[in-house]
Amino acid sequence: MPLYRVTLSYDGTDFAGWQIQEPTTASRPPQRTVQGTLEDVLAGLSGGARVRVAGAGRTDAGVHALGQVAAFELARDWEPRALERALNGLLPADVRVLAAERAPEGFHPRRHALAKLYRYEMDTGPVQVATRRRLAGHVPWLLDEELVRKAAALYEGRHDFASLASAGGSVKTTVRQVRRSHARFVAAAGVGPTLVYEVEADGFLRRMVRSLVGGLVAVGRGRLSVEQLRAALEARHRSHWPAPVPACGLTLVRVDYPAVLT
Amino acid sequence: MPLYRVTLSYDGTDFAGWQIQEPTTASRPPQRTVQGTLEDVLAGLSGGARVRVAGAGRTDAGVHALGQVAAFELARDWEPRALERALNGLLPADVRVLAAERAPEGFHPRRHALAKLYRYEMDTGPVQVATRRRLAGHVPWLLDEELVRKAAALYEGRHDFASLASAGGSVKTTVRQVRRSHARFVAAAGVGPTLVYEVEADGFLRRMVRSLVGGLVAVGRGRLSVEQLRAALEARHRSHWPAPVPACGLTLVRVDYPAVLT
Repeated sequence: MPLYRVTLSYDGTDFAGWQIQEPTTASRPPQRTVQGTLEDVLAGLSGGARVRVAGAGRTDAGVHALGQVAAFELARDWEPRALERALNGLLPADVRVLAAERAPEGFHPRRHALAKLYRYEMDTGPVQVATRRRLAGHVPWLLDEELVRKAAALYEGRHDFASLASAGGSVKTTVRQVRRSHARFVAAAGVGPTLVYEVEADGFLRRMVRSLVGGLVAVGRGRLSVEQLRAALEARHRSHWPAPVPACGLTLVRVDYPAVLT
Repeated sequence: MPLYRVTLSYDGTDFAGWQIQEPTTASRPPQRTVQGTLEDVLAGLSGGARVRVAGAGRTDAGVHALGQVAAFELARDWEPRALERALNGLLPADVRVLAAERAPEGFHPRRHALAKLYRYEMDTGPVQVATRRRLAGHVPWLLDEELVRKAAALYEGRHDFASLASAGGSVKTTVRQVRRSHARFVAAAGVGPTLVYEVEADGFLRRMVRSLVGGLVAVGRGRLSVEQLRAALEARHRSHWPAPVPACGLTLVRVDYPAVLT
């Protein structure tokens, strides 16, 4: 059967994340997920047959995407532009297909991903403007910009991120290669500047970006020095790390693949 | 009684506009408005007494604000920062008080306004990314940037905007002084660039900004030449003007007052 690859954007606010949640009790209604929403629409295009969708990143509840990549097989041949239009006609407004294409045989969006780019936006200052509340986190302080930039640079390179791993995680290794970790501040319409943090790595632990930003905020407001943050990272023990920041400010921006697959 | 002035931001998506709507029939539930929401909260702060709120601009349903200005009297004295905190604690998340202050006696946010600045954001290209759907309009075309900039410049100066006036309007004059009318395009995360249009004038007719942008889009996609748009403006007759664009892309950014009142 032909394999398709789609680039998705979604507003994560009203989703319980990417991945289909199996209900734990019969009485609990199924949660609304991006994968489940896409599979339902694809079943409709396939005469009711279940279509399994694989995604590049299992984004958490509330996390957005500008460039999530998903793949699925369909029984019939679709002209990619027609598939894109059909899906956008059937999907709810908070999920949009930005591009659809035929994928090379065997393509798997998660296993073949070389790197992912995430962006976190954090508004600062006493009050967050109302239009930003679904798309950015907020801290009611002003952050020391120079210290935040230094802390962000600390994350670059190959590190064991065990200090940031969620309790009870089942990953084989907590070592990740961070290719780029960059904080900048942009003047915002509201009260304080917005911290825009971008991080690119070969892979991410669960809630890793939100914990990385938790570290930046702790340094930026003076709760930890850059050196103390470095020590907390090297401690490889969760209890030393600042709390993760809320999901609403996080966006999966892009997934990179080997040139032969693109 | 002491008079207060607040600067408000709101997400207009879930409001039927600024102004309290009187129900037309007894069976129709009252609509959710920003003014009504603020008056309800102020009544709660005032032991149930109705507090009348005056606003600088009567934004339509779906229109956002970063700098709406409102004024009201309260029976008791409030320290402005305490009033700001109390209001933000009681208001819903889609209305935020960015600043509260004592206003000079007699201050009226609409009558004393010298000028208002509105911004319209219009995403272009085949698909709009999902996170932008509440905050920006969308046209599925790419626009000619140079022509759009020329069309925007056409609006500057003193004009009779009768061509853009809503039918049945009761305004005394449709002449307005446009101090600045400027279009730029910014690279967007999604598919095509975003048109960012800013217009500052001494006053606006109902739906005027959305109609001005309708004119820019008509020129940018080649439906009208800049000269034809100029002729449509000079015709001073509504039927010659392109349709207004949707409210969701529009934001009231700022209201200016004489220095003596600020």
